[in-house]
Amino acid sequence: MGLSVAHVVMKLGIRADADQVTIDATTLFVALLCACIVIGHLLEENRWFNESITSLLIGLATGTIILLTSGGRSSRVLEFDEQLFFIYLLPPIIFNAGFQVKKKQFFRNFMTIMLFGVIGTLISFAIIAVGASQLFKKLNIAFLEMGDYLAIGAILSATDSVCTLQVLNQDETPLLYSLVFGEGVVNDATSVVLFNAIQKFDVSNMNSGIVWQFLGNFLTLFITSTLLGIIIGLLSAYIIKKLYFGRHSTDREVALMALMAYLSYVMAELFDLSGILTVFFCGIVMSHYTWHNVTESSRVSTKHGFATLSFIAEIFIFVYVGMDALDMEKWSFVSKSPGKSIGASSVLLGLVLVGRAAFVFPLSFLINLSKKSHSEKIEFKQQVTIWWAGLMRGAVSMALAYNKFANSGHTQVPGNAVMITSTITVVLVSTLVFGMITKPLVRFLMPPAMHSSSMVSSEPSSPKSFILPLLGSRDNSEADTGSPTIPRPTSLRMLLRTPTNTVHLYWRKFDNAFMRPVFGGRGFVPYIPGSPTEMSVPLLNH
Amino acid sequence: MGLSVAHVVMKLGIRADADQVTIDATTLFVALLCACIVIGHLLEENRWFNESITSLLIGLATGTIILLTSGGRSSRVLEFDEQLFFIYLLPPIIFNAGFQVKKKQFFRNFMTIMLFGVIGTLISFAIIAVGASQLFKKLNIAFLEMGDYLAIGAILSATDSVCTLQVLNQDETPLLYSLVFGEGVVNDATSVVLFNAIQKFDVSNMNSGIVWQFLGNFLTLFITSTLLGIIIGLLSAYIIKKLYFGRHSTDREVALMALMAYLSYVMAELFDLSGILTVFFCGIVMSHYTWHNVTESSRVSTKHGFATLSFIAEIFIFVYVGMDALDMEKWSFVSKSPGKSIGASSVLLGLVLVGRAAFVFPLSFLINLSKKSHSEKIEFKQQVTIWWAGLMRGAVSMALAYNKFANSGHTQVPGNAVMITSTITVVLVSTLVFGMITKPLVRFLMPPAMHSSSMVSSEPSSPKSFILPLLGSRDNSEADTGSPTIPRPTSLRMLLRTPTNTVHLYWRKFDNAFMRPVFGGRGFVPYIPGSPTEMSVPLLNH
Repeated sequence: MGLSVAHVVMKLGIRADADQVTIDATTLFVALLCACIVIGHLLEENRWFNESITSLLIGLATGTIILLTSGGRSSRVLEFDEQLFFIYLLPPIIFNAGFQVKKKQFFRNFMTIMLFGVIGTLISFAIIAVGASQLFKKLNIAFLEMGDYLAIGAILSATDSVCTLQVLNQDETPLLYSLVFGEGVVNDATSVVLFNAIQKFDVSNMNSGIVWQFLGNFLTLFITSTLLGIIIGLLSAYIIKKLYFGRHSTDREVALMALMAYLSYVMAELFDLSGILTVFFCGIVMSHYTWHNVTESSRVSTKHGFATLSFIAEIFIFVYVGMDALDMEKWSFVSKSPGKSIGASSVLLGLVLVGRAAFVFPLSFLINLSKKSHSEKIEFKQQVTIWWAGLMRGAVSMALAYNKFANSGHTQVPGNAVMITSTITVVLVSTLVFGMITKPLVRFLMPPAMHSSSMVSSEPSSPKSFILPLLGSRDNSEADTGSPTIPRPTSLRMLLRTPTNTVHLYWRKFDNAFMRPVFGGRGFVPYIPGSPTEMSVPLLNH
Repeated sequence: MGLSVAHVVMKLGIRADADQVTIDATTLFVALLCACIVIGHLLEENRWFNESITSLLIGLATGTIILLTSGGRSSRVLEFDEQLFFIYLLPPIIFNAGFQVKKKQFFRNFMTIMLFGVIGTLISFAIIAVGASQLFKKLNIAFLEMGDYLAIGAILSATDSVCTLQVLNQDETPLLYSLVFGEGVVNDATSVVLFNAIQKFDVSNMNSGIVWQFLGNFLTLFITSTLLGIIIGLLSAYIIKKLYFGRHSTDREVALMALMAYLSYVMAELFDLSGILTVFFCGIVMSHYTWHNVTESSRVSTKHGFATLSFIAEIFIFVYVGMDALDMEKWSFVSKSPGKSIGASSVLLGLVLVGRAAFVFPLSFLINLSKKSHSEKIEFKQQVTIWWAGLMRGAVSMALAYNKFANSGHTQVPGNAVMITSTITVVLVSTLVFGMITKPLVRFLMPPAMHSSSMVSSEPSSPKSFILPLLGSRDNSEADTGSPTIPRPTSLRMLLRTPTNTVHLYWRKFDNAFMRPVFGGRGFVPYIPGSPTEMSVPLLNH
C-alpha cells in the first residue's frame, strides 16, 4: 500500500493545485445539488418535469457553461468514476428502496417480479445483442466483435429504476409500483451479473454447457446474496433488541443501522456477490425487525435519513451523468462520422423499445393465464405502463459502458467511441424524452380515480387498504400482523385459490412464533400505548 | 483534469487488486466501526472508558493483529489521509457541534471563550515552541530548525475537543461545557491558522511587523469566516421558509440543510477561510432559524441525523489514529535510538501540561476580576477541570504533524521521524491516560449534586433552568424567546451589572423585530399547538 500519506498534499491554504481542483469541484457540485433541490421543488407541480430530468438538465447546462468557459476542453469538473458510483452512490439508493418498500406487495408479486426481472432481462439482452449485431452490419455502422455486441446487450438491458420510481406513486398504484420497482432491483442485479459473466467467459465457443453454468452461477449468486443480506439484517435486529440500545442513545442506534446496512453491501462485494441484492434484502429485514426495536426518534430519523441519503445520491448521479455527457474527448472521434453515431443510437433506441415490449406483453400474458381472479390480472393499460416505465436507461448503463469501452485504452478506438456516445445518447434521450412523457402517460392510462379500485390487487375486500394509505402510515401493509391471531383465509377453498396468501399465512405464523420473539418487530418490542409514538406517525409527512 | 475515468478499474467482480484492497479496507473499517459502537455501548457504565478510548484501543488492537499477520510490514489498511480528515470527517463534527450547542450559554461566555481559544492557544504555542527548542538542545535529543519548533508548537496546541466533549455533560455543567467546547472550536481554528501562518512566513527574520500582520490576518479570517457561515445559514432559513418546503417533502428539507451546511464548509475552504469556524456558525444559525422552519419529522431527523454523522466521524477518526499509530515505517527509524524518542515525547507531554496551565489559571484570574457576582466566577475546581479537559491531543495534531513532517520526503529524515512518533505518542498517551482519568476526575471535582447549584451561571433566579434540562428539550435556553415581551432585567442597576445580558436583550429585540419575521425561527413558523409536535419533544431520548 505504501505511504501515500506522504504524497497527499494537504489542503488548508497550503494546498497544491490538485486539491484546489477537488475543493472547486466539490463546491460546485454541492451548490448544484442545492440548486437541483430548489428548482426541483419549484417544478414539482409541472406535468413534464421530475427531479431526475431537472437534475440531468442542470448537469447538461453546467457542462455547457464549463465547456464554453474552458474553451471547449472539458465539460467536467469530476470524472465519471464507476467506483464512486458503485461503492458510494448506489448502495444508499438500493438500501432505501428495500427499507421503504411495501413488503407485502413485494412478496405477493414475487414470482411476477422474478419473471420480469430475470427472464425479461435475458430476453431484452438477447434481442438487443442479436439485433445490434445484425443491424450494425447491415447499416454498415461499425464492426465490433461478438463480445462487444453481447456487452452492449447487457449494458442496455439495465433499466433505471431510480427515474421510474419518481413517476409512479406507491400509494396510488401499489401493484404497478411493486412490479416496476421490484423488476428494477432484480434487473440491476441480473444485468450486472450478466455483464460480468460475458466479460469472463470465452464467448467465441459458446455452448449449452456455458448457458447452464451461467444459470447455475446466477442462482447461487442470487441465493447467497439474499441470504447474506437477511443474516446481517437479522443480526442488526438482534443486537439492538438484546442490548436495548434505545434506552441509551438514538444516535448509536441510527449509526449502527446505517453502518450494518453498508457493511452488508461491502461484504457482498468483497465475496464477489451482488451487493445490490444483499443491501436490498438487508433493507427489507431491517424495516421488518430492526426498525421496530429502536426508539421513536430513531424510527423517524432512519426513515427520513436514509431517504435523504438516497435522494441526494439520485440527484448527484443525474447531475453527474448530465455533465459527463458533454465531455468532448468522446465526441471528437464521433464528429468525423456523425451519421454513423446517429444511426447507431437510433438502432439501439429502437432495440430498447422492442426488447422491452418483447418480454413485457408475452410474460404478462403468461402471468395472467395463471391467475384466476380478474382483479389479480395485469390489464393491458398496466402492461403498457410497465413497458414504458422501464424504458429509461441510466447510471448503471453508463458505468457498465465505461467499464467495457473506455477501460484500457480510452475512447481512442473509433468503435469504442461510437459505443460510448451511443450509450450516452440512449441514456439522455430515454431519460429526457421518455421520462418527460411518462408522467402525462401514466395520468392518461390510469387517471387517479381508477387507481384505488383496480390496483388494490389481491385484497379487494379489505377496507384497511383504503384508509391506511391516507394516514400515511409507513407500514400499513403490516398493520394487522402484530396480533398473534390471524382471522383471514380459514376455508380450504380459499387456501387453494390463493396460494400466495397461503405462503404468506404460513410465513406470518412462523414469523410470530419464532422470528419476532428473537429479533423483535412490530408488537414484540414494548412501547407505551397511546404515547406520542403512535399519535405522531400519521402526522409525519413524507 | 485528464481522463482518469479510463484509468479507474471498475470493481464488480472484474476488479483489479487495487480495488480489492479498497473493498477489503472499507469492509474492515465498517465492521470495526460497528464493533466500536457495540463495545462502546457495553462499556458505557464503566468509569474509565469512553467511546474515543474504546475506539482508539480497537484501532490499536486491529493494527497489532494486521501487523502480526502481515509479518511486521504494515499495520494499516487505510493510510492516514489529511484530505479525508479535513474534507469529510471534520465538517460533520464541527457542524453538529454548532447545531447542538446551547447558544445562550455560548454567547454569554463569548469573551471568555475567545480569550481561552485565541490568547490561550497563542500562549500554549509559545511555551511549547520555546520550551521544546531549549530542552531538545539541552537534552541533546534532536537538532531541528526554528521553523520546526514553531510548527511543533502549533501542532501540539491543537486540543481535541471531540474527546473532551464526550466526558462533560452539557446539561449537568452548562458553563463548563460551553467554555471547554467553545474554546475547542476557536482553538482548532487558531492553531490551524497559526500553523499555516508559520508555514508561509519566513520565520528566520521575524519581527513585530509580522506579528501584527498575523494578528490582522487572523482577525480578518475570523470575521469573514463567521460571516460566511451566518450568511449561508440565513440563506437556508430563508429558502426553506419562503418556498415552504415542509408542505411537500421532509427529505428535501433535510437534504437541503445538510448540503448547505457542507457548502458553507467547502466554500470557506475554497476562499482560503477557516472552514471550521464557518461551518460552526452555520450550524448555530441553522439551529436558531432553519430548524424551526421545517416539519417535525425534519427536526427529529436533522437533530439525530447530524449527530449520527458526527458520531460516526468521531469513532472513525479514533480507530484510524489507533491503527495508524502502529505503522512500522515511522518507528523503524526511531527504534535505533529509543531513548531520544522517549525523551522527546516526555518533554513534549510535559510542555503540553505546562503550556495549558500557563494560560488557564492566569486567564481565569483575569476573567474573575471582571466579574462582579460570585456565581459568574470560574471556581478553582472548574479551572482545574478546564485545564485537564483540554490536555488531550487528537486527529488535528496528527494531520498537522503529517503535513509538516511527512509531507515531501517521508519520515526518512531521523529528525522528522522523531517528531512524527513523538506526536503520535503524545496523542496516544494524552487520549488514553489523561482521557481515562478525566471521567473520575470530573466526578471527583464536581459531584453531580453540586452541578445544578453552581453551574447555572448568570441566571440563578430562573427556575426554568432547573426544569427544562430535565425534560431534555433541545433548545431549553431559548424556551422564552418566542414571546415578544421580555420581562427580565428591567431596572437600570441590573442592566449595568449584567452587560452580557443587556447585549442579549438588545439582540433578542432585534431578532424578534427584524430577523425572525424574515428568516423564521421559534414562534414565527405556524404549527398546531398541542399537537404531537410539542408532546413528543421531551420523549426524544438523546
